[in-house]
Amino acid sequence: MDEKCGVVGVSLDDRAAAQPIYYALYALQHRGQESAGIVTHDGFQQHSHVEMGLVGDAFSEDDIAELNGPNGIGHVRYPTAGSVDSSCAQPFSVSFKSGSLGLSHNGNLVNASALRDELAGLGHAFTSDGDTEVIAHDLARNLLDDDLVAAVERTMGKIHGSYSLAVMHDDRVLGLRDPQGNRPLCLGELEDGYVLASESAAIDALDGELIRDVKPGELVVLEPDGAGYESHRLVEPDHTARCFFEHVYFARPDSTIDGELVYEARRELGRQLWAESGIDTDVVMPVPDSGRAFASGYAEAANEGDGSVEFAEGLMKNRYVGRTFIMPTQDERERAVRLKLNPIKSTVEGKTVTLIDDSIVRGTTSTQLVELLRDTGAAEVHLRIGSPAIVAPCYMGIDMASREELLAADRSTEEVRETIGADSLAYISHEAIADALDTPREDLCMGCVTGEYPYDIAGEATDREVSRPTIDGNRASAGD
Amino acid sequence: MDEKCGVVGVSLDDRAAAQPIYYALYALQHRGQESAGIVTHDGFQQHSHVEMGLVGDAFSEDDIAELNGPNGIGHVRYPTAGSVDSSCAQPFSVSFKSGSLGLSHNGNLVNASALRDELAGLGHAFTSDGDTEVIAHDLARNLLDDDLVAAVERTMGKIHGSYSLAVMHDDRVLGLRDPQGNRPLCLGELEDGYVLASESAAIDALDGELIRDVKPGELVVLEPDGAGYESHRLVEPDHTARCFFEHVYFARPDSTIDGELVYEARRELGRQLWAESGIDTDVVMPVPDSGRAFASGYAEAANEGDGSVEFAEGLMKNRYVGRTFIMPTQDERERAVRLKLNPIKSTVEGKTVTLIDDSIVRGTTSTQLVELLRDTGAAEVHLRIGSPAIVAPCYMGIDMASREELLAADRSTEEVRETIGADSLAYISHEAIADALDTPREDLCMGCVTGEYPYDIAGEATDREVSRPTIDGNRASAGD
Amino acid sequence: MDEKCGVVGVSLDDRAAAQPIYYALYALQHRGQESAGIVTHDGFQQHSHVEMGLVGDAFSEDDIAELNGPNGIGHVRYPTAGSVDSSCAQPFSVSFKSGSLGLSHNGNLVNASALRDELAGLGHAFTSDGDTEVIAHDLARNLLDDDLVAAVERTMGKIHGSYSLAVMHDDRVLGLRDPQGNRPLCLGELEDGYVLASESAAIDALDGELIRDVKPGELVVLEPDGAGYESHRLVEPDHTARCFFEHVYFARPDSTIDGELVYEARRELGRQLWAESGIDTDVVMPVPDSGRAFASGYAEAANEGDGSVEFAEGLMKNRYVGRTFIMPTQDERERAVRLKLNPIKSTVEGKTVTLIDDSIVRGTTSTQLVELLRDTGAAEVHLRIGSPAIVAPCYMGIDMASREELLAADRSTEEVRETIGADSLAYISHEAIADALDTPREDLCMGCVTGEYPYDIAGEATDREVSRPTIDGNRASAGD
Amino acid sequence: MDEKCGVVGVSLDDRAAAQPIYYALYALQHRGQESAGIVTHDGFQQHSHVEMGLVGDAFSEDDIAELNGPNGIGHVRYPTAGSVDSSCAQPFSVSFKSGSLGLSHNGNLVNASALRDELAGLGHAFTSDGDTEVIAHDLARNLLDDDLVAAVERTMGKIHGSYSLAVMHDDRVLGLRDPQGNRPLCLGELEDGYVLASESAAIDALDGELIRDVKPGELVVLEPDGAGYESHRLVEPDHTARCFFEHVYFARPDSTIDGELVYEARRELGRQLWAESGIDTDVVMPVPDSGRAFASGYAEAANEGDGSVEFAEGLMKNRYVGRTFIMPTQDERERAVRLKLNPIKSTVEGKTVTLIDDSIVRGTTSTQLVELLRDTGAAEVHLRIGSPAIVAPCYMGIDMASREELLAADRSTEEVRETIGADSLAYISHEAIADALDTPREDLCMGCVTGEYPYDIAGEATDREVSRPTIDGNRASAGD
Repeated sequence: MDEKCGVVGVSLDDRAAAQPIYYALYALQHRGQESAGIVTHDGFQQHSHVEMGLVGDAFSEDDIAELNGPNGIGHVRYPTAGSVDSSCAQPFSVSFKSGSLGLSHNGNLVNASALRDELAGLGHAFTSDGDTEVIAHDLARNLLDDDLVAAVERTMGKIHGSYSLAVMHDDRVLGLRDPQGNRPLCLGELEDGYVLASESAAIDALDGELIRDVKPGELVVLEPDGAGYESHRLVEPDHTARCFFEHVYFARPDSTIDGELVYEARRELGRQLWAESGIDTDVVMPVPDSGRAFASGYAEAANEGDGSVEFAEGLMKNRYVGRTFIMPTQDERERAVRLKLNPIKSTVEGKTVTLIDDSIVRGTTSTQLVELLRDTGAAEVHLRIGSPAIVAPCYMGIDMASREELLAADRSTEEVRETIGADSLAYISHEAIADALDTPREDLCMGCVTGEYPYDIAGEATDREVSRPTIDGNRASAGD
Repeated sequence: MDEKCGVVGVSLDDRAAAQPIYYALYALQHRGQESAGIVTHDGFQQHSHVEMGLVGDAFSEDDIAELNGPNGIGHVRYPTAGSVDSSCAQPFSVSFKSGSLGLSHNGNLVNASALRDELAGLGHAFTSDGDTEVIAHDLARNLLDDDLVAAVERTMGKIHGSYSLAVMHDDRVLGLRDPQGNRPLCLGELEDGYVLASESAAIDALDGELIRDVKPGELVVLEPDGAGYESHRLVEPDHTARCFFEHVYFARPDSTIDGELVYEARRELGRQLWAESGIDTDVVMPVPDSGRAFASGYAEAANEGDGSVEFAEGLMKNRYVGRTFIMPTQDERERAVRLKLNPIKSTVEGKTVTLIDDSIVRGTTSTQLVELLRDTGAAEVHLRIGSPAIVAPCYMGIDMASREELLAADRSTEEVRETIGADSLAYISHEAIADALDTPREDLCMGCVTGEYPYDIAGEATDREVSRPTIDGNRASAGD
Repeated sequence: MDEKCGVVGVSLDDRAAAQPIYYALYALQHRGQESAGIVTHDGFQQHSHVEMGLVGDAFSEDDIAELNGPNGIGHVRYPTAGSVDSSCAQPFSVSFKSGSLGLSHNGNLVNASALRDELAGLGHAFTSDGDTEVIAHDLARNLLDDDLVAAVERTMGKIHGSYSLAVMHDDRVLGLRDPQGNRPLCLGELEDGYVLASESAAIDALDGELIRDVKPGELVVLEPDGAGYESHRLVEPDHTARCFFEHVYFARPDSTIDGELVYEARRELGRQLWAESGIDTDVVMPVPDSGRAFASGYAEAANEGDGSVEFAEGLMKNRYVGRTFIMPTQDERERAVRLKLNPIKSTVEGKTVTLIDDSIVRGTTSTQLVELLRDTGAAEVHLRIGSPAIVAPCYMGIDMASREELLAADRSTEEVRETIGADSLAYISHEAIADALDTPREDLCMGCVTGEYPYDIAGEATDREVSRPTIDGNRASAGD
Repeated sequence: MDEKCGVVGVSLDDRAAAQPIYYALYALQHRGQESAGIVTHDGFQQHSHVEMGLVGDAFSEDDIAELNGPNGIGHVRYPTAGSVDSSCAQPFSVSFKSGSLGLSHNGNLVNASALRDELAGLGHAFTSDGDTEVIAHDLARNLLDDDLVAAVERTMGKIHGSYSLAVMHDDRVLGLRDPQGNRPLCLGELEDGYVLASESAAIDALDGELIRDVKPGELVVLEPDGAGYESHRLVEPDHTARCFFEHVYFARPDSTIDGELVYEARRELGRQLWAESGIDTDVVMPVPDSGRAFASGYAEAANEGDGSVEFAEGLMKNRYVGRTFIMPTQDERERAVRLKLNPIKSTVEGKTVTLIDDSIVRGTTSTQLVELLRDTGAAEVHLRIGSPAIVAPCYMGIDMASREELLAADRSTEEVRETIGADSLAYISHEAIADALDTPREDLCMGCVTGEYPYDIAGEATDREVSRPTIDGNRASAGD
């Protein structure tokens, strides 16, 4: 499972925006490692640098120096299947009759291909097959007749799906969040300007202060040169469809999303996991680093009762994992897990163990880890998971896996346990998620764990009554 | 002075077009070293690979293998000043309502910005500032209503300037040459298909046979899978404006352009140069390799009379010139010429020398060479040039130099001679050019040597009465 | 402070040694990132591939495939100051009268330059200025007359200092540990052979079993083709001088060194840190990841009493730290710490905090973190350190810092606290180290925390009475 | 057939030697493309930078800037078969008792392995298997007892074979040429110092003046800082064994070797080729660029008589040949020749043609060219070659081909003609070579065209009576 895309927008008083954007993208690197890009505007013209690879590899000091201007946007991208090429790297920029546009997009439209056809019928030609170019063309077209806010409102009326956008129209930076607030977007204040970012950790990286999240359906316009910002609530939805998975999996623990600090949400889920399915074992250990916050809450809750569960590291991560590396061949694959995670004998051997992780997608890693712990001499291995069972794909911009690959898609918890080889297995409940996020269940998108979506997706059940556009479940348009 | 852009189009019966295109581009590498690209179509979808750098560096074997399909086009590009970036690398591809388009362009439109404004007014948004995207959008728009030939004809009616285009509409490859035939384009037959190319040497590289040049104003449509080709003479002009500089400077000596073998044209010019301004010296030597063919004709003509001029190499070229190299600093620049060209003492020392080259643009090299020959002991150095004095810039797609940089722009031949330091200097006459190319003077574009252009260019004199579109001489639209 | 060098030696029955060595080096990557190398022997000849950079970047699949033979050694290197160049990359290989030698060295000789002079007097010429070439030449010379074991014994009698060596003599792989056992070296069994490695985690990465540590003064000879191994205890010292810093700082937590699992030693030090200087605060947090094991033990000990200290993450590490990255300029340096470590508000704001780390060298990071926690609203920040104050440089192969750069070199603990800005500061005691490592104080090298060394180093105090060679404290010979 | 190695040595008054050496190596690039290196000495220490690849790729501006000191040597290398690795890249440098040595070597020792064994017996260990390290060790050993000149003399007394060496002992640059003068080496004067180089074209590149060739058996010592030079004629041989192939093939046409300008020697050979085997055809054309000088002399001689042979280019070389390029697969190989050389129809079609080249080694190219010319419509194709038939391998440092690969090794001229498919074929005579080089036959090494060598090579015939060392003809020691 891979998270997808981070966006940034910055407007400053009297210094170049490129370097702060660079650092903000570095703070959002976990949201996309395929490409990185920055577009700035110096009042006269746009400057753009987009390249494949990590932020640190995509930009040289010279590249940053040439990105003139105090206003700009940035993007890190994780590819959707089948479009791993440079033509979809962002920000996407175009020039049109009345100026230039740059767009950074996180999310996935459900009606992109209909909209694309409509624009093609008007003579538009497209250089990529991404959603972002469709939004750009529609917005450019609207800007022929309308002022900026009206044009955005018209475009917002047409595009359906999940989107958090950082847009640059000439030297004006905008932030736009879809009416369901599916993807996160927040607003921060810097010493000398303002910043929009997918996660608040990017604001922290600039020594800024988080002002608040951009509201579902809200357009925030940063005045050029850091002078201030205007808010336009273009749509006020009855319900939102916030992605709970951002909190459980994607976002950095130190980010605050829609008012909730991710680290605390995970610790709270850990505590509820103990409450729901706690089991007394000699030791509680996280899968590093994904299970750490959950395990910390779980162990704390255990010990707050009469328990004396030991919280310890049982698996040590090679800190160079993720670097270039010749993969072992298929028949050596088993060993590969020990190149990444090596058991610590003293905390495992002869002990009953509870292993905590955030999620199970394909189940491959979980299976390997359980086997590894048993090989190391664990007496029992119990698995506790900080999210519900993932039973269905995501159509909202997250490239999880196809339904066939999801281990829990057509297996009961008992069957999953058996496959993985654990002594026991428990997921967190759906209710616990809503509680931990302090958000009504009906304001969350939990499609991947319920199979019911806040949009009418052909072939999938609908989560609620609200009427929404239809899309083809087999081929959602390419997202970003 | 740098040549600009080579185009290729290939349609084959039953093998991938990518590798032949690759070799054809390699044969056209002298026409552009900034970027190289190939777009193919496999009947279902387009494949594209465009990268900065030389052909050999831009494509790996894997890249070639992934460019599926028996039909495709290619491009090598030399940048115009100010647009040395990847967004203008070609072929340019777009998808639109009824399919996909790929374009490879050699030339320069004179009305690109007007046409761009017109399209922008209809809502079009552009990702680059090149001519090619404008042509692509216009053609895509016309294809909404018209069939292919009619659409091309409508676009041809709108775009003005010089262009030789290899176009791919879905799996159909087209060749299109502007009504003045300013840039070359020829058609060849392969064992299993057809090929369009800027120069016939690219056809030779594929072991093909040159059929003929594409005619000014002609559209050639290659039937998919190498089945044949159709010709549509969309415009039949009274006069052409063929660039004589292709013959004198740009093209490979082994290419045949508009019926004339370049090598023979240059030898003939060498002969006429002797006839017009021959001077008896001990030795005649070419500037390698540019002056070689001219010098060969010159010496031959000299010896056909009573002369006994010795034809010899006097300057030896370092065959690694053109590779990566740390340039000497400004004050060592003088020596730099000897790193590239080193005199051969035995043919220079104590002798009277005639040095033959194809052209003088800025005059820097000529000046250095004359000085170098004198330092080596030449008794006299006479310079004979195979083209007329270049007095004005090119607006038709060749990035020569600005008027201020042209040595002959505001200097008499005597003044140029004095600057260069030669004992005598003579250019070939305008008439000799027309004779050697066996083409009426009024069918040639000789703007750069007359200052009179076959188009109304603001601030420049017009060559003939024919009414043509006006452009701003200071800022011709970006060419390719 | 940077750790230095990892060594590996492998002998297998019937498969190439290169890939296992590659994975073992990957597991030892934390010991050196400057260069990586593998030398193998196929029974007929040596194969060598040594390159600058990380293991994953230094070898392609082709490189590994060309390293034939079932026996081989490997090396990862961290440079000492002043010799950051490829000539010191290892393994170092030479051929000599009776065969070939390859050497991988971790440590630092104290008499290298005397030995070098001696060999030079006999006519030896050196291609590098490293210790390793000196050892290689001496060993090669001894092998002219002696058999392998006797030759090694003679060399061991000559070289003084710290060294753990993996040596290859033709197809025979040796492991050699200096008589003081300063640097670690261990022996493991694989399914089809044997392995020598700096740390047991490298054996784990190959799914092998740790047999035992190589003893101080012991030579282990792996029989070719994984058939077995022989032990030769060449020297049996009265006392060892094992580096305690390996346990506290360098080694992976999941490695066992001289019988002690590093993770448990650190947890025990954490417990003793509580016992010695525990302070009640709202929360205990590690500096990730260096302080994690210490903090876990500390918090556990705290809670075992009456305490209810919360153990929580208070600083979140950007998981891309360590990648290529444009460093902020000097005046932005302060912010740089937040790009690497970002505070988690919920566990810091308004709270009294104990921050746990493994060591303080220059103090820069500690100072920044204390300031960062205060800026985030910490009521109090107390610092507890898992090692004693570092007051003197290391001459045994670790590139810490010069004496002037060591914050504690000439400051009392109170002065260090003041500089760092913490509310309180405590180090672990010297005694606790010996206890936690279950090793007599006199068998440890604690030069960097006592200023008294187990060698006579000019200008430094001597740790014990044992007579040892003298070296110049200002210019210890280049180590590896 | 590939030429091998170029050497340079420079001593200057008051500027860094690295940049002049860099330019000199660039001028000698044709002598070796595998690696490039520079070693300088600043009076205190040596600086070295050696890298694989072309000169322009091997050095950055920073690399050059770090090579301090007014004295230095350089090397470009072409690999001998089987040792294409970086350990043999040069200059080779070592430090020893009384200083440092750097060596650049062009040639091949015939007794390297005996000498190596001798040194190994004294305890020497070697890091490469090249001749150069053997010379370096021997010289270093001699320098223990002797002064510089005596030490070089002793080494010269021991090493046998061909060698031109640029040596640096501390800050003193030496040039040494073997007593037979097999490989070229010349001495030049710069404005502010002196230069030693394999060819005079490297001196020209530095705007220097050729003083003279270093004599066979002579040691030239450049005084530090460009102050002057001393000559020591260590050996005065009765006969030399100068390589005639340098003049015919290897060297740049603009170089003067042993008093003969290479270009003129080739033209003279062309004239004699006409005299010996001239044939009247419509046109005479060179294989570019290797046959150009020969063809010029041949055509001149033809026309000086009654002839009216036309001298013309018939094959056009793609000027990007030699760059990175995906090679055609085996069955497309035939076409590959047209990617490199394309016929010019006008000078070939329907004509009788004489094609001139410098040599035939394997005959592959000649065969392809003859076929190409016939395909282009040549009525007859006659081949004239500027060197005698190559019938035997070179043991003196040139990596031609093994005997089996040499087309003429076991074929008569008529058989070679038939294989190649030419209408007639003639080589130049042995006598013409001696005449053209103005050198007695017995002072030339013509082993490759006679099979008789100026050394006793096991399995090969000896050229003359002079007693010389024996080597094993199947395995001459690795050369450089």
